[in-house]
Amino acid sequence: MKKMDGRNLIGYQYSAMADDILEVLSPVLKETLEGQFHIATVEETDKAMQMATEAFEIFKKTTGAQRASFLNAIADEIMNLGDILISRAVEESGLPEGRIIGERGRTVNQLRLFAKVAEEGSWVDAAIDLAQPNREPIPKPDIRRMLVPIGPVVVFTASNFPLAFSTAGGDTASAFAAGNPVIVKAHESHLGTNAYVAFAIQQAALKTGMPNGIFSSLNGTGPGLGQRLAKHPLTKAIAFTGSFGAGKALFDVAAQREEPIPVFAEMGSINPVLLCEDALKNRGTTIAKQYAGSVTLGVGQFCTNPGLLIGTESPELDHFINELSNQIKDIAPSVMLNEGICMNYERNKNHILNLAGVQLESQSGNSPKENEGRPAVASVSGTAFLQEPALCEEIFGPFALVVKCETEVVLSEVIDKLKGQLTATIMAEESEMEKYESLINKLQTRVGRILFNGVPTGVEVCHSMQHGGPFPATTDARFTSVGTAAINRFARPLAFQNWPKGLLPDELKDENPLGIWRTIDGVFTK
Amino acid sequence: MKKMDGRNLIGYQYSAMADDILEVLSPVLKETLEGQFHIATVEETDKAMQMATEAFEIFKKTTGAQRASFLNAIADEIMNLGDILISRAVEESGLPEGRIIGERGRTVNQLRLFAKVAEEGSWVDAAIDLAQPNREPIPKPDIRRMLVPIGPVVVFTASNFPLAFSTAGGDTASAFAAGNPVIVKAHESHLGTNAYVAFAIQQAALKTGMPNGIFSSLNGTGPGLGQRLAKHPLTKAIAFTGSFGAGKALFDVAAQREEPIPVFAEMGSINPVLLCEDALKNRGTTIAKQYAGSVTLGVGQFCTNPGLLIGTESPELDHFINELSNQIKDIAPSVMLNEGICMNYERNKNHILNLAGVQLESQSGNSPKENEGRPAVASVSGTAFLQEPALCEEIFGPFALVVKCETEVVLSEVIDKLKGQLTATIMAEESEMEKYESLINKLQTRVGRILFNGVPTGVEVCHSMQHGGPFPATTDARFTSVGTAAINRFARPLAFQNWPKGLLPDELKDENPLGIWRTIDGVFTK
Repeated sequence: MKKMDGRNLIGYQYSAMADDILEVLSPVLKETLEGQFHIATVEETDKAMQMATEAFEIFKKTTGAQRASFLNAIADEIMNLGDILISRAVEESGLPEGRIIGERGRTVNQLRLFAKVAEEGSWVDAAIDLAQPNREPIPKPDIRRMLVPIGPVVVFTASNFPLAFSTAGGDTASAFAAGNPVIVKAHESHLGTNAYVAFAIQQAALKTGMPNGIFSSLNGTGPGLGQRLAKHPLTKAIAFTGSFGAGKALFDVAAQREEPIPVFAEMGSINPVLLCEDALKNRGTTIAKQYAGSVTLGVGQFCTNPGLLIGTESPELDHFINELSNQIKDIAPSVMLNEGICMNYERNKNHILNLAGVQLESQSGNSPKENEGRPAVASVSGTAFLQEPALCEEIFGPFALVVKCETEVVLSEVIDKLKGQLTATIMAEESEMEKYESLINKLQTRVGRILFNGVPTGVEVCHSMQHGGPFPATTDARFTSVGTAAINRFARPLAFQNWPKGLLPDELKDENPLGIWRTIDGVFTK
Repeated sequence: MKKMDGRNLIGYQYSAMADDILEVLSPVLKETLEGQFHIATVEETDKAMQMATEAFEIFKKTTGAQRASFLNAIADEIMNLGDILISRAVEESGLPEGRIIGERGRTVNQLRLFAKVAEEGSWVDAAIDLAQPNREPIPKPDIRRMLVPIGPVVVFTASNFPLAFSTAGGDTASAFAAGNPVIVKAHESHLGTNAYVAFAIQQAALKTGMPNGIFSSLNGTGPGLGQRLAKHPLTKAIAFTGSFGAGKALFDVAAQREEPIPVFAEMGSINPVLLCEDALKNRGTTIAKQYAGSVTLGVGQFCTNPGLLIGTESPELDHFINELSNQIKDIAPSVMLNEGICMNYERNKNHILNLAGVQLESQSGNSPKENEGRPAVASVSGTAFLQEPALCEEIFGPFALVVKCETEVVLSEVIDKLKGQLTATIMAEESEMEKYESLINKLQTRVGRILFNGVPTGVEVCHSMQHGGPFPATTDARFTSVGTAAINRFARPLAFQNWPKGLLPDELKDENPLGIWRTIDGVFTK
């Protein structure tokens, strides 16, 4: 059995109807890696979607415990792949081995966390209103509502997390946990990693008796396969992590379908940081060190990379910029995820640096080699920032822009100009928070997560995480793509009225056989 | 003080910048009613949106208790309007006085229910993950998430519920409860009713000290004012109840904005009813009576009107059709909501009746007078139904089509052909539910609410209600427009990371001062 099969995985079967292939160029080895990945045809796409739709009829009736065993089995199978997965992911992504091993840990933990969520069962948000047959003027019916899965979910894997936001990442795990089949569009940068993980999912599905078609993995391009999947009438939702351009294109296609479908696209963000006066005064050097690390973490290739640091002109801000500059100088360029991302980074950075009023403060002392991104920090006055819309756009890579606001009015206007963001961070002493209250209020309306004295990189996978913010950070600020609440993206409420007690789903039965949290007549109870 | 002022209400002030006016033609009196309603200009629209945005900054900080007092005050002020509101609504809608009095009761109860939801506070779905500073390899931060309001909500009032789904209806009540300002687009059919209720909201806002701009009511047309409001950059969400055409137009505009916004459009539905064999055998006559009542309730002008009755060819189905026909014959035509709706009803009904294979089974024995809709029931074979897409479309009015399926295969195909619906109903004996299991499963994937042995009309306002279904029944099947969960439409999650304890919202404070239900490290607790 070949664990890295370059064909499309359609249900339990591999398929290669077309001779057109994709290959992967390693950004770190600078050579084409082993593996020829067959592009999925229209027929193969149709087959995967059709099989997913049929599998859904069975999968949606599985218990949470059954889905948990499937998810746990995927985690086991991923670990069973061993070092071949790690080395392939390193070769394909250019990310260091330690990071990939860590990311595998995160991926496996995520799968096990969603297994727990599925098994525990309260995520269905069950609500019961008991009948009142004698109510006047009309009897009150018995109504019981719970979340149910929606059908085939198409997952677009992300370049920057070849494991945790990819084939068996958070989108797939949460879609499975809720009871939906998943069709993965493999990322062209890590087709081999995808093939390994797809194999793991296939094995897990076979071993836990899941219906054939519950999972497919297809190879292809964004404009080709991606658009085809988004337009496919059997697709019921889309999960995506990537650029604004690609995410917005999916959103537009989905909205224009005969039957529009939800798109959860997590797109760009510059994750503004408000540098408050006293914090800079008391610990400017420490903050500079912290941010030099955060801006360049993973070669700046995180959705939550803090690309914009905002403060008021002062000797302390100048000192901070100096310290940050010194730090950045000492951070070596590193290999980026792929050639295109690296070229875009250098081009976009240079574009910004050539804009009026923008000054390069410092960059990595070493010259970058092929496919390497060179960390850099620049500055601009608040007034110049306000005049140049391009400065509000994300530069994907290890780059930060410090905005030096001449006055408090300019500071306020700079914040007014920011679009929706995943995060904002307030670097402040607690004693000065009141002074910045109105600015903090404004930032809160623009973000999904607001931090106090920290760095936005490193998104905790937990119950309360909100990874998603107002447009254009995401296409749906009401949902998160990280944390247990991510499961809510792939479900919808269904109410049963006066339904025969014996035929109700377990989640809604009087005796609460699953022991889940529910509201009965509006009161929480177990 | 004039309670029915024909000008636009912008915050606390009345405004009439344009001389263009609308007037209301009573469908029942067949005369133009008192009142000249000034159409809102671009400037007035901007002003209302700008004031709402400013008011939001204050309103979003109000406590649930403060918003509850506002909502309760609206209910009081509506009751204080007394008989003038009732008589105007009767004249404008053609609905009988008893119905309007009942609807006022529902409206007031809804406001008081959302007041309770706001005051109790658990709706914010608070989740707390406590810090673990000693966790390896990296410390776990303190993260706390809750739902927060989103900003100005534009509410399009509905023709068929001049009170309960209009100016102070469920959309407005739930948007206010969550902390959002509301801008109402008055319905052209009941501008006077709207003006009265807008006055009540204004009075309630003044008496409970709500910020100026929290509510505005504007007069205008759908293509004019409606589109302008949907496109307005300060609009953050849209709530709509009405036709598919108008709802889809709003959805399209909202998706094409520079910043897309959510649209909760509750559109058409034919609410299929599956007539099972034994049920027809045992109580066909009773079911026929039940459905004659449901189909003609409110002159068939309910979103949940059961327009499609589906069964397998049999003597029992023929008997049922006969009984239903006899009932329908005896139900007199009644005044519909407005001239246009009545004309559309007669035109659409006649169009259907002229399609191949469609047979008029019976209609009201009385000829309809001006603006009256004539109840009718028709039948068609399953095979003919499958060949004519128009038969899947809603006929808004007192009309039902019975589909007589020749075989079980045809029955299954008929159900496959149905689009998304608000409801489906299974008329069956419990003992035959197993036989119909696969059909019932299919129906469940197409609806927001599924009923056993009842009628879908009469939507209970409660915690577990789901009034919303897959497209095209609504534009967002994940939310409901009836019941307490409707509040979730106008909120989004915001997470606070390592936020200073003293500055956290009360909902997220350690000591839980509001005593709300929350999850702490994934465990529900109060």
